[in-house]
Amino acid sequence: MRQKDGPGNLESQRRPRVVVVGAGFGGVNAAQNLSNLDADILMVDRRNYHLFQPLLYQVATAGVAPSDIAYPVRAIFRRQKNFDFLLAQVNGVDLEQRKLLTSRGAVDYDYLILSIGGETNFFGLDSVQENGFDLKDIDDAENIRNHVLLMFEKARHEEDEEICRALRTFVIVGGGPTGVETAGSISELIRLVLVKDFPDLDVGEVRVILLEMTEELLPGFPPDLSEKAVNTLRRKRVEVRLKETVTGYDGESISLKSGDSILANTLIWAAGVRAEKLVDSMEVQKGKQERVVVEETLQVPGHPEVYVIGDAAFMEHDGQPLPMVAPVAIQQAKTAAKNIRNTLEGRPLEKFVYKDPGSLATIGRSAAVARIGRFKFHGFIAWIVWLAVHLFWLIGFRNRLFVLIDWAWDYILYERAVRLITSHPKSEQHDLNLVEREDKR
Amino acid sequence: MRQKDGPGNLESQRRPRVVVVGAGFGGVNAAQNLSNLDADILMVDRRNYHLFQPLLYQVATAGVAPSDIAYPVRAIFRRQKNFDFLLAQVNGVDLEQRKLLTSRGAVDYDYLILSIGGETNFFGLDSVQENGFDLKDIDDAENIRNHVLLMFEKARHEEDEEICRALRTFVIVGGGPTGVETAGSISELIRLVLVKDFPDLDVGEVRVILLEMTEELLPGFPPDLSEKAVNTLRRKRVEVRLKETVTGYDGESISLKSGDSILANTLIWAAGVRAEKLVDSMEVQKGKQERVVVEETLQVPGHPEVYVIGDAAFMEHDGQPLPMVAPVAIQQAKTAAKNIRNTLEGRPLEKFVYKDPGSLATIGRSAAVARIGRFKFHGFIAWIVWLAVHLFWLIGFRNRLFVLIDWAWDYILYERAVRLITSHPKSEQHDLNLVEREDKR
Repeated sequence: MRQKDGPGNLESQRRPRVVVVGAGFGGVNAAQNLSNLDADILMVDRRNYHLFQPLLYQVATAGVAPSDIAYPVRAIFRRQKNFDFLLAQVNGVDLEQRKLLTSRGAVDYDYLILSIGGETNFFGLDSVQENGFDLKDIDDAENIRNHVLLMFEKARHEEDEEICRALRTFVIVGGGPTGVETAGSISELIRLVLVKDFPDLDVGEVRVILLEMTEELLPGFPPDLSEKAVNTLRRKRVEVRLKETVTGYDGESISLKSGDSILANTLIWAAGVRAEKLVDSMEVQKGKQERVVVEETLQVPGHPEVYVIGDAAFMEHDGQPLPMVAPVAIQQAKTAAKNIRNTLEGRPLEKFVYKDPGSLATIGRSAAVARIGRFKFHGFIAWIVWLAVHLFWLIGFRNRLFVLIDWAWDYILYERAVRLITSHPKSEQHDLNLVEREDKR
Repeated sequence: MRQKDGPGNLESQRRPRVVVVGAGFGGVNAAQNLSNLDADILMVDRRNYHLFQPLLYQVATAGVAPSDIAYPVRAIFRRQKNFDFLLAQVNGVDLEQRKLLTSRGAVDYDYLILSIGGETNFFGLDSVQENGFDLKDIDDAENIRNHVLLMFEKARHEEDEEICRALRTFVIVGGGPTGVETAGSISELIRLVLVKDFPDLDVGEVRVILLEMTEELLPGFPPDLSEKAVNTLRRKRVEVRLKETVTGYDGESISLKSGDSILANTLIWAAGVRAEKLVDSMEVQKGKQERVVVEETLQVPGHPEVYVIGDAAFMEHDGQPLPMVAPVAIQQAKTAAKNIRNTLEGRPLEKFVYKDPGSLATIGRSAAVARIGRFKFHGFIAWIVWLAVHLFWLIGFRNRLFVLIDWAWDYILYERAVRLITSHPKSEQHDLNLVEREDKR
């Protein structure tokens, strides 16, 4: 079948083409906001699904299945007539020629919205990058799940006490929401769920450690909520260590700036993010975290046809860079879409103004901290708000239903159903490491 | 923590140890049937979950999530006091020394139940093994799902008609239940679901072909049901070609013995099974499909302490080898467990007698064929029986609920939720193959 509007043959088209890179919160919302425009919208992503990143740590801790927080892009846009999708890796942008360079060839654009998100920043700590885990996509999350469960399987039949201690020590680096949520969730996975799988397990010998470089958790939250988070985590038996900086990790021992070291076979790095690597190839001005500096209209200076939104865009708000969170991406998507419409219809462009909806972080069962406008709260009510907000923003009724059932399962029965060790690239490697110890017997 | 009963220190134990290899239907049922025995049961498997293989083809066709048909071994045996689990790859059996050789060292046994299952038999067709897919575990299923969806993403922006035809041709080899069920399900995935994702898709240009070497589908079913299966598949637009033998496949073109060839980027091999490779290293008598010949008591001749059950065991019934199906494994598990108990308690051993519960195969929405005792039926009623039987045998209430919801979704809304292209070992390779075609533009 001959395709009439593949990415290759723009020549034959008259309508302008808006290319949206990235199927995250920014990209999806931008494309949706362009639904009635007399233009062709082409979304490009290397994944065929939208990922609900805020719940990724629950995949990593065996709470929900990957398919419950992922939703096919084509299903989201089924009813949008001017939409098409290209599954491809984006390798660069030719700003002068207005071409997106992808693994499936060059794609011409009239307008470009880059909503490419962020990636983990290891700040040059190669040993941590090599031997630790990070948590940006489904593979990362499944790798962590596989690895954590594998540590307990290994420890079960291990007689060397020191080896056992390292197998049962889980270190999370970074006191932002991801680090806090992951630490709380791993601790509960072990103390409430795995303890039933391993009746001989002494939970007193399991350590979950959260390391934070600064003096407080959850930067950006009001100080009293940060303190509440520390207390709640400690009550959930997470060792919170502030003002600790990691300098290296060989897979066995974590070196700290203080001179201390921690024996642990698991390090999860949640201590840094930066704009996605694609920006490195672009000759544009960058701000902190390699984010692309944009005009107040979200355009790239000198390239009014190019918009950058979300984690990859640099813009200040109250003297601080905008946080790398979904609400920023969603609001910017709206402004970028509107400005493309304004341009096509000859109207002046709008400036982006961020409306901070507040901050939320959960710390496990019945515990969360929340700031909404001027209101601050914590504990059970904050947790209910957290649940409701996350269910609301999930795409698709089935995903909401499945996540809700899994949450109920966990809450009522202390069960996490997805305790599966599957074979994924990184974990496979660990799998084969299943110690060869015949000589010792 | 010191483990008191790791696999290494059998010396200190007095109770006999029964080692069960394999967490499939046979292994799980054997271990469960040994629950009240005054012995230590150690199950060994390289996966930490029991897999409900009969629904694996639904993972391959985006209908259900992998975690819905997998159940953690430790969760199954939580209440069984004499049970322990070792996650390890089994590399061999030292029948003389009564040791199981695993990736985590040697494990002594007093009694051994090998329920190691089967694997795909490519009959020496290396090119098919290399370029085709098979369907034995979760990875295989996810690889097929990723690949099938990827073919449509590639075809969407492909202008070359011949390339498109190969991308949209799906060949399933083997007319047994797996082949029939996969062919029916892929055809419906495309015609009822993907057609909504790709509005320009002309389903008339998609081909789903089922090749069978013999003159009929579903060997072992009554001839009139086999014929019904052919008719139903054809009505569902599957091209059924009987008496066709595949001789090779280079990833692009399938060679047939008839001299014909089929251009297709997808070949799913469901045309052969054999006992798991572990048997190759064992010096015991083998029957057809490399299955280990066992006594009527299911013991290995000359090694009364070793039992082989399920797909890996060879035994005849009515002059035919027992089929490689769950009911055989489950019934044999019961007999093997009882015979170990009989031995320990000084009673004579029982002979295994297979009670054939019948056969079931589904061919898609509202269609199945069933033989139960002397009754034969097909169509909607057979399909309802198929649904009920499979839900019943699934382990775990949550898995039943999730599968049921996904089936309802599919049936009522013509939706398959798990249309995700994830990165798995084999599919990743395909992913990177996303054609580099910049020069053509």
